[in-house]
Amino acid sequence: MSLLVIGTVAYDSVKTPSGTVEEALGGSATYFSFSSNHFKKTELIAAIGEDFKKTDIHLFEKYGIGISGLQTYPGKTFRWSGLYHSDNLNKRDTIKTDLNVLANFNPEIKSPNNSAEHLFLANIDPELQINVLEQMKPRPKLIGIDSMDFWIKSKKIQLEKLFTMVDVLFLDENEAKMVTGKPNLFTSAESLSKKGAKIVIIKRGEFGSIVFYNDSIFYCPAYPIKTPIDPTGAGDSFAGGVMGYLASCKNINNENIRKASIFGSVMGSFAVESFSINQLESITKDEIINRFEFLYKSAKFSKLNTKEIEKILY
Amino acid sequence: MSLLVIGTVAYDSVKTPSGTVEEALGGSATYFSFSSNHFKKTELIAAIGEDFKKTDIHLFEKYGIGISGLQTYPGKTFRWSGLYHSDNLNKRDTIKTDLNVLANFNPEIKSPNNSAEHLFLANIDPELQINVLEQMKPRPKLIGIDSMDFWIKSKKIQLEKLFTMVDVLFLDENEAKMVTGKPNLFTSAESLSKKGAKIVIIKRGEFGSIVFYNDSIFYCPAYPIKTPIDPTGAGDSFAGGVMGYLASCKNINNENIRKASIFGSVMGSFAVESFSINQLESITKDEIINRFEFLYKSAKFSKLNTKEIEKILY
Repeated sequence: MSLLVIGTVAYDSVKTPSGTVEEALGGSATYFSFSSNHFKKTELIAAIGEDFKKTDIHLFEKYGIGISGLQTYPGKTFRWSGLYHSDNLNKRDTIKTDLNVLANFNPEIKSPNNSAEHLFLANIDPELQINVLEQMKPRPKLIGIDSMDFWIKSKKIQLEKLFTMVDVLFLDENEAKMVTGKPNLFTSAESLSKKGAKIVIIKRGEFGSIVFYNDSIFYCPAYPIKTPIDPTGAGDSFAGGVMGYLASCKNINNENIRKASIFGSVMGSFAVESFSINQLESITKDEIINRFEFLYKSAKFSKLNTKEIEKILY
Repeated sequence: MSLLVIGTVAYDSVKTPSGTVEEALGGSATYFSFSSNHFKKTELIAAIGEDFKKTDIHLFEKYGIGISGLQTYPGKTFRWSGLYHSDNLNKRDTIKTDLNVLANFNPEIKSPNNSAEHLFLANIDPELQINVLEQMKPRPKLIGIDSMDFWIKSKKIQLEKLFTMVDVLFLDENEAKMVTGKPNLFTSAESLSKKGAKIVIIKRGEFGSIVFYNDSIFYCPAYPIKTPIDPTGAGDSFAGGVMGYLASCKNINNENIRKASIFGSVMGSFAVESFSINQLESITKDEIINRFEFLYKSAKFSKLNTKEIEKILY
C-alpha cells in the first residue's frame, strides 16, 4: 500500500543570499513527495489551479508520484513568496501569500487512497488535515503531521485535536515552544508526547533534530552543507525521508525510527542545495546512501570500557 | 605528569532568568580545572588579588587542584558581571569588567609546571597565552586553546600566531566565523584546520559541538538540560572535560577524541545547572558516567544492511 500525502502544491518566489527564483514549483506536498517517493510510492492529494503547468504535471508523473488526487480548481494555483535573511538563513519573511484555489479546496479521498496504510498531513490548514483524516477507512497504520506558526496562532483548537489523532508529530523548535507554552525544548517535547503522538520530532534546521520516542531521545544530526542555496522545503523533505522510510518498514521500532530520521536529514540536505526541487529530483540512490553513511560515521563513538571508567578520578 | 591550565580566576556577578549571584567564584581557569581534575590532576596558573577568600583557596585544595601557580598580586581579584537574556540564554551582555590584578599579571611558570605534558590556554589575553607557551620546555605533548570575540577583535595577530602553535582549538560558532571571515561553520572549520591545530572543536552551546579531526567530522551532542540556571563557564567546563580526558589517554586518536568531546558535553551540562561551580564541585564519578552513557544511547543508530539498501527505490 502507498503513502498518501495531503498538502500544498504551489508556485514559490524566493529570494535568498544566493539568488532569486520566480514561480518555481514548491509547496509542502511537492517537497514531501519528491523526497518520500525514494522510499515508498507516494500518492498526492492537493489542489492546483487552471494555470498549473503541464510540464510540472509531467514532472510528478516522470518521478512516479501518484497524482490521481491532484484536483484542478477554477482560478490560479497557490502562490507564496518569501525572503531569507542574508546574515541568517534560518530567518525568513513571508512577502506574500495568495491562497487562490486553496481557499475553496475541499479534498475528496477516493478509493484506494482512502485506505492508504500511511498518511502524512503536510503543512496546510488544520481543518483540511482533519477533513482528510476523517475520510480514511480504516485508520491508517501510521499518521504523521506537520504544521507552522501561522496555524498555531490561528487554529490552535483544531491543531490540538489533531495532535491527539496522529502517531508522528513534526514541529520546529519555536513551534513546539509556542504551542506548548514551555520555554525549553525538552519540556515542550514531553508536553507534546503527552498529547498523544508516539513519535515527536523537533526540527532545528542546521542543528539537526531531536526525536522523542518511548522515553528515549535520539540526536539526529544535520548533514553538513557548505553552500546552502534555499532552505524552502527542507522541513517537508525531511518529513518525506522520515515518513517514506517508516512506510517501507514492517515494524515501527526505535531502530527504524532512528534510521528514518537520518534519511530525513539526508533528504533535507538535498532540498537546501538548490532552489525548488531541482536537486531533489536529480539525486540518485547512491547519493542518498552515501550521505546516510557519512552521518553514521560522523555520529559514532564507543562505549566506555572498564579501564576507562576506572580512570575517572572521583 | 599533570595538566597545566593558565586562565582567569574571578569573582563573577551574574543575572540570569533563574536568579542572581554576586561575587561568586568564577573565571576560565576555575571552571576548567574543576572539570578537568575529574580526569587528570590539574595545576592552575592564575592571578588573584589580596581580597581572594581563604575559603575559595581551600575549595581548590579540597578538590585536589594544584595551586602552586596561583599568584597573589597587590589589589583586587578580577571581576566580571554579566546579564543573560530572558528569552535566549545563549545571548549575554557584559555589564562590567574590572581587570584589577589581571592588568599586571606576568605569569612565571616554575618547575615542574614548565615541563607539564598537557597545557590548556584558557580564555585570557593572548599575550599571556603566548608568554606561558614560550616558558614550556619541552613543548607539551598536547596544547589546547580557547579565546573569545573580545580578543579576536583586539588581538587578532597574536591569536593567529597562537593558532599555528597549538593542537586543539576551541571556538564557538560565531567566533570561528568572525576570525576566519567565512559565513559558514564548515568552511570556517576547514580554514581553521589549515592554520595548524590538528583538532578543531566548534562549540554551539545547547546544540552541541562539532569536532574536526583528520578530515573527519564528529557531531557531539549536548546533554539535555531542562532547567538551565547559568551558562557562565559552560565552555570552560566543556574544554576541561575534553582536555582532562585526552590528558588521561596514552594515544590521541579519533576514538579518544570523540569520547573526550562527550565528556566535554557532560561537564558543560553540569556547569549550567547551577551558579558558579556549585554543581561541578558536588558531582560524583557515577553521575559523570551516567551522562556519558545517556549520550551514547541517544546518538546511536545502526548501519544500513543490504536489504535496507535494496529497499530504496531509485
